[in-house]
Amino acid sequence: MALGIGVIGAGTVGGGVIQTLQSHRPVILDKAGVEVALVHVAEKNLAALRELDLDGVTVSEDADALINDPKVRVVCELIGGVEPARTFIVKALEAGKHVVTANKMLIAKAAPELTETAARNGVELCFEAAVAGCIPIIKAVRESLASNQVRHLYGILNGTCNYILTRMTYEDKDFEEVLREAQAAGFAETPPDLDIEGHDTAHKCQILASLCHSTPVSLDEIYVEGITNVSRLDVAYANEMGYVIKLLAIIARVDGELDVRVHPTLVPGDHLLASVKREFNGVYIDADIADATLYYGRGAGRFPTASAVISDIVDIARRAGAPAQPPFRYSHHLPLRDIGLLCGRYYVRFTTRDHPGVLGRICTLLGKHGVSIASCIQKEEADDTPAHIVMMTHETVESSVTTAVEEIDGQDDIIVEKTHLIRVL
Amino acid sequence: MALGIGVIGAGTVGGGVIQTLQSHRPVILDKAGVEVALVHVAEKNLAALRELDLDGVTVSEDADALINDPKVRVVCELIGGVEPARTFIVKALEAGKHVVTANKMLIAKAAPELTETAARNGVELCFEAAVAGCIPIIKAVRESLASNQVRHLYGILNGTCNYILTRMTYEDKDFEEVLREAQAAGFAETPPDLDIEGHDTAHKCQILASLCHSTPVSLDEIYVEGITNVSRLDVAYANEMGYVIKLLAIIARVDGELDVRVHPTLVPGDHLLASVKREFNGVYIDADIADATLYYGRGAGRFPTASAVISDIVDIARRAGAPAQPPFRYSHHLPLRDIGLLCGRYYVRFTTRDHPGVLGRICTLLGKHGVSIASCIQKEEADDTPAHIVMMTHETVESSVTTAVEEIDGQDDIIVEKTHLIRVL
Repeated sequence: MALGIGVIGAGTVGGGVIQTLQSHRPVILDKAGVEVALVHVAEKNLAALRELDLDGVTVSEDADALINDPKVRVVCELIGGVEPARTFIVKALEAGKHVVTANKMLIAKAAPELTETAARNGVELCFEAAVAGCIPIIKAVRESLASNQVRHLYGILNGTCNYILTRMTYEDKDFEEVLREAQAAGFAETPPDLDIEGHDTAHKCQILASLCHSTPVSLDEIYVEGITNVSRLDVAYANEMGYVIKLLAIIARVDGELDVRVHPTLVPGDHLLASVKREFNGVYIDADIADATLYYGRGAGRFPTASAVISDIVDIARRAGAPAQPPFRYSHHLPLRDIGLLCGRYYVRFTTRDHPGVLGRICTLLGKHGVSIASCIQKEEADDTPAHIVMMTHETVESSVTTAVEEIDGQDDIIVEKTHLIRVL
Repeated sequence: MALGIGVIGAGTVGGGVIQTLQSHRPVILDKAGVEVALVHVAEKNLAALRELDLDGVTVSEDADALINDPKVRVVCELIGGVEPARTFIVKALEAGKHVVTANKMLIAKAAPELTETAARNGVELCFEAAVAGCIPIIKAVRESLASNQVRHLYGILNGTCNYILTRMTYEDKDFEEVLREAQAAGFAETPPDLDIEGHDTAHKCQILASLCHSTPVSLDEIYVEGITNVSRLDVAYANEMGYVIKLLAIIARVDGELDVRVHPTLVPGDHLLASVKREFNGVYIDADIADATLYYGRGAGRFPTASAVISDIVDIARRAGAPAQPPFRYSHHLPLRDIGLLCGRYYVRFTTRDHPGVLGRICTLLGKHGVSIASCIQKEEADDTPAHIVMMTHETVESSVTTAVEEIDGQDDIIVEKTHLIRVL
């Protein structure tokens, strides 16, 4: 008998799932050998349903009616946000229904509670679509790399940021200009804060860190820096040094602690992640048994996200009879590592008055804090404009370079703008 | 209770599986929540076992003893080749054991028979490691893309060929020179035919074509061309035109037929597959719901392959209680498409006497067969050396361009060497 599917929310993603379940039912049967049937859709805005084929499908304005429909065995929560999504998911789990969601914000904020609820009710909570859209990264980390310790994970997890940074890189444009164009083209939300301030990436990073290291991770403790301070100048100087700037989620295990952070990063131009352009996502994982792997695809969008949601539905159908898999396993409780302890190379751009001795003073102050310089660019500027001094440091400790830069930024006779500091992969 | 694992063959891959199962048992438990225990190893060459930790593990010289060991629930066949691997696998399936194998040649040759045997005995036959090593491509096609029709698949599936072509591209070396060095460094087998003639890629291509399109595919009907005729000159001219040469497995569905082929291909320099270098593998899939995805990693090697083998073991452990999944589903029976019907662009390199009128005669003969030229390179050569005329055609039908080239190659007053023809992605 076909597995009954209920979809809460018929917006962009929900609509894509509804359409695909209806149109591709024979494909799913051919490829996966399972019968899945859309039986119920709950949507408050009935206008959203107008274009959809809902032949033989119950339609409710009320999610509870869907959750309590005995024909529904799997509830897909596709409305996003924390509430009422959380309430619907908990009710569905408590009613003994499996749940599939694309809701990264909710999973990132409530993973332990939802894990406990799912386990207590012997049902599954699946969320492949919550991280990197159609890229099967949850499956890769949890199943394909099951025997691996993940040494490093570097992820481009937000299509909007990657789209903006790509256009800044290849079209030499300002951040604000590209953002406005991205909003007009529908590639960026209005307001765009969740994306450009890095929080959306942090949600996905939290989920991946938990899965890679079997540990709860507190979202609030993740170091997050968005791309709003990345300037056209930084992009151009980085390029001149052989790098592109990407917003990365970074996860590593260092001395029994978890290094989890989200920030703009200089990525070497010949690294595979540099080839992940425009709205695409990519995840690079360095693991101890498999070595380097990369996964690439669309991180958002109606159909790519639907593809991931349906892959979860198919997995649930195929696992029927086996014990439910918990969404997270908390075998460890690793503390997050302080960002000040980070060891790495830094791109630093000083904006200075064009006075004699400025470079010397900057170098002296960096040296005082033990920061040593690998390369330096200073170009001749018109007489009355500030000079840019761009440096790449040797490997150094984050707290040293930030303390040095703070002290240099205090020298207001030579520094005319807050110094830009970007970490290097 | 732990799932008992038996490993037949303790060579490169088998040894890697044995080592990882022993050293990473706690990791597997943490991440996957399953207990797997190596209980039996069968290996004729006892010297191969010397470096391995086999504490508490039964060791046999005889595979039958392993297959009949009641503690063994999953048999890993890691000896490769057709026989005796086929016999061991069939015996294990008949004995009600799940089987995990990395044996692409056997799967490519005997998939229907093995599928029937596995289904009849209600057990699983898993082969993630048979295609592209640690890249979870079987899982991606079968599970993650379960709702998708695959429009195109392009795969770099043989590390040896990719290593050779990469070094030819970036170090301007001859095929034979790089092959010798690759053999010395252990990146190429001796004899290397299975790799460089494209047959290993064809085995993997057969498996992926069957999975993507739920159809049996006859290995013998796949068009296969290796890399032995790719010269340093072709690599350099392709580069000049903005392409790199890769050995690709190509799978597409055209007018109800399957287009399945393996041959050297000019890949645009900014395509993601062009960034798959050295011994790495990469698979690019264009699917109707998910759109473009790429999967990258090591296609061979002791530990990367072990990672894939163990992912299959973990999947079997987690699916315990659910109906066994058949290795292949033959919902369709699609005929293979004749290569002569292929429509595409072609790189053509003529080696000619440096006579007046040669270019004109070539162009006339191409035109006679309806082949039109998009670009052409001819460089000035020393007086007594042959001239190279390199052309990129517009889109044309394969049979037209091959007929034209055959006719041109018959003109031995102007042509001094067989013309090189390479398809373009």
